[in-house]
Amino acid sequence: LSIVLDTQGGDNPPAELIRGGLLAADEYGVDVIFAGDESVIQPNLPANDNRFSIIHAPEIITMEDTPAETVRRKKNSSVVQGIKAVRQGRAKAFVSPANTGAVMAASLFGLGRMKGIERPGIAMALPTTNGSQVVGIDMGANTDSSAENLFQFAIMGRVYAHRVLGIKEPTIALVNIGSELHKGNDLVKQARAYLETLPGFVGNIEPNRLFDGEVHVAVCDGFIGNILLKAAEGGVAITTSALKKALTHRPLYKLGAAMMRPALRMFRDEMNLSRFGGAPLLGVRGISIVTHGHSNADGIKHAIRVAKDAIDCDLLERIESRVQEHITEGVFKKTK
Amino acid sequence: LSIVLDTQGGDNPPAELIRGGLLAADEYGVDVIFAGDESVIQPNLPANDNRFSIIHAPEIITMEDTPAETVRRKKNSSVVQGIKAVRQGRAKAFVSPANTGAVMAASLFGLGRMKGIERPGIAMALPTTNGSQVVGIDMGANTDSSAENLFQFAIMGRVYAHRVLGIKEPTIALVNIGSELHKGNDLVKQARAYLETLPGFVGNIEPNRLFDGEVHVAVCDGFIGNILLKAAEGGVAITTSALKKALTHRPLYKLGAAMMRPALRMFRDEMNLSRFGGAPLLGVRGISIVTHGHSNADGIKHAIRVAKDAIDCDLLERIESRVQEHITEGVFKKTK
Repeated sequence: LSIVLDTQGGDNPPAELIRGGLLAADEYGVDVIFAGDESVIQPNLPANDNRFSIIHAPEIITMEDTPAETVRRKKNSSVVQGIKAVRQGRAKAFVSPANTGAVMAASLFGLGRMKGIERPGIAMALPTTNGSQVVGIDMGANTDSSAENLFQFAIMGRVYAHRVLGIKEPTIALVNIGSELHKGNDLVKQARAYLETLPGFVGNIEPNRLFDGEVHVAVCDGFIGNILLKAAEGGVAITTSALKKALTHRPLYKLGAAMMRPALRMFRDEMNLSRFGGAPLLGVRGISIVTHGHSNADGIKHAIRVAKDAIDCDLLERIESRVQEHITEGVFKKTK
Repeated sequence: LSIVLDTQGGDNPPAELIRGGLLAADEYGVDVIFAGDESVIQPNLPANDNRFSIIHAPEIITMEDTPAETVRRKKNSSVVQGIKAVRQGRAKAFVSPANTGAVMAASLFGLGRMKGIERPGIAMALPTTNGSQVVGIDMGANTDSSAENLFQFAIMGRVYAHRVLGIKEPTIALVNIGSELHKGNDLVKQARAYLETLPGFVGNIEPNRLFDGEVHVAVCDGFIGNILLKAAEGGVAITTSALKKALTHRPLYKLGAAMMRPALRMFRDEMNLSRFGGAPLLGVRGISIVTHGHSNADGIKHAIRVAKDAIDCDLLERIESRVQEHITEGVFKKTK
């Protein structure tokens, strides 16, 4: 079972990302194909270890590259070549910390869309205060979605929650600014009519309640999803900053904080979002996983874990067959 | 200087909201007119205190009432009657924890729009990690805005940051999912062209950076603004929940936490969002302040403080004259 790891395009240097790949190989028993500059990758690999190989693709996609340019002009980039390895069957999945738009474009172009899916969406398992996880979809693959897109995200997200997170009858909610029926922008109001035809749909969810673990799948436009993620990150940052300020306000507090070190370390580990790295782009015909640009070795390791879980539970086939069932049942038509 | 406080429509009982009004009267030297059910308000007021009066308007606007219904059918609600008192000059400002859509509708209908402003926007001063504040606008008055709306929000938000927060040359940024020029949805891309004509415009801001205090005014569509606020709230909630879990994980930690009580209290006070209650609806011809539905007495007190600050610095007149300058300079036309 081979997984391609893109060693370029993240905020961390390739050596750190490669380290994540090596950790994942040891921990999850996967083979890793490192895509990037061979001269950079080679020195970071153990000698004579046939679990590892390299795709030499030194072109780097920057945050400034538009999705279209990426696919058209940077053919020898680690993103384009990594996706190609998946298409050709040399690997089962692709994992990348690069520019999301570029990964999306290369995946769409290189792997193609699933039948019945107009636009792929990023599904991300988010932490909640009750210890469960909630699948947010779309967390940023698209910027202007239609109600039909949201409907398809919901179907795919539900399969993900069921197969990968092991939730028996996942509930679906629509991300909105209020719980009341009449609330929302035009897109949300249109999408609601579509979602109401789906099993498990329970209504609206406000982003502050999202992290309570009340629902299993939260559906939104990718622009909203990305704003939501980054705003929650901001909320985490102001809280930890206030805590730090309070704990260091007086020398006495610092002493107390030193005594509490194990508890504060536990807190820090709990808030280490690397544990939630790795989000599959659902709706393309192959497993393509995006990770946060900040991902360190741990984040990469976790993203490879997400890839392996998706492979192990036949996620693609399950989504494809669920979408086909919906097409056969005529739900796709009914909602048009 | 009289301010109308709506005692209905919040999550807390009228007595708690009234207490906030009494605190504000003592602390800021304002007179308070309480709008709501006289039989509920009267027993909560000190006897023979001429700083306080009552507008008997017992109809309550619920979260289920649509904005249009509110204004048309609930004429004897505290929202509609409170706004009326401002229009008639009996009070200088209106403060309400009720349904935002209802306050928006009543304010638009009762006070009218400023010349040159198509849609009012909610401006909220948000906390940052460096101790400064950033004005977010629109934080939820509208759900589907145009690029022109965002441009007008920016102008009004900048006057607010300058006059109320005392920032000399406020910078303006556009809330977006990336810092790069090509990022964003259609609305954001269109709005960018408009905003670039404004003094102080510095580009995009991602919601995770919003709380760093790097920019003074952050402009967005009201749906995005409300999602952003609630997601940040969610981020605060998961962080404090993880901290609590860690601090109570072992009896020993509980002892340590007890020793650290002053520091943890300082942290809790710092994270008490009541200190940020009260956001003016800018663009209507009167001062109308919305507060969080959860607002307790402290939150209401702070919202009245926001009202008083707006009155003291002639916020309305300042915004009106700035908008007129822009009209005269032809900027409004140029951008069409």
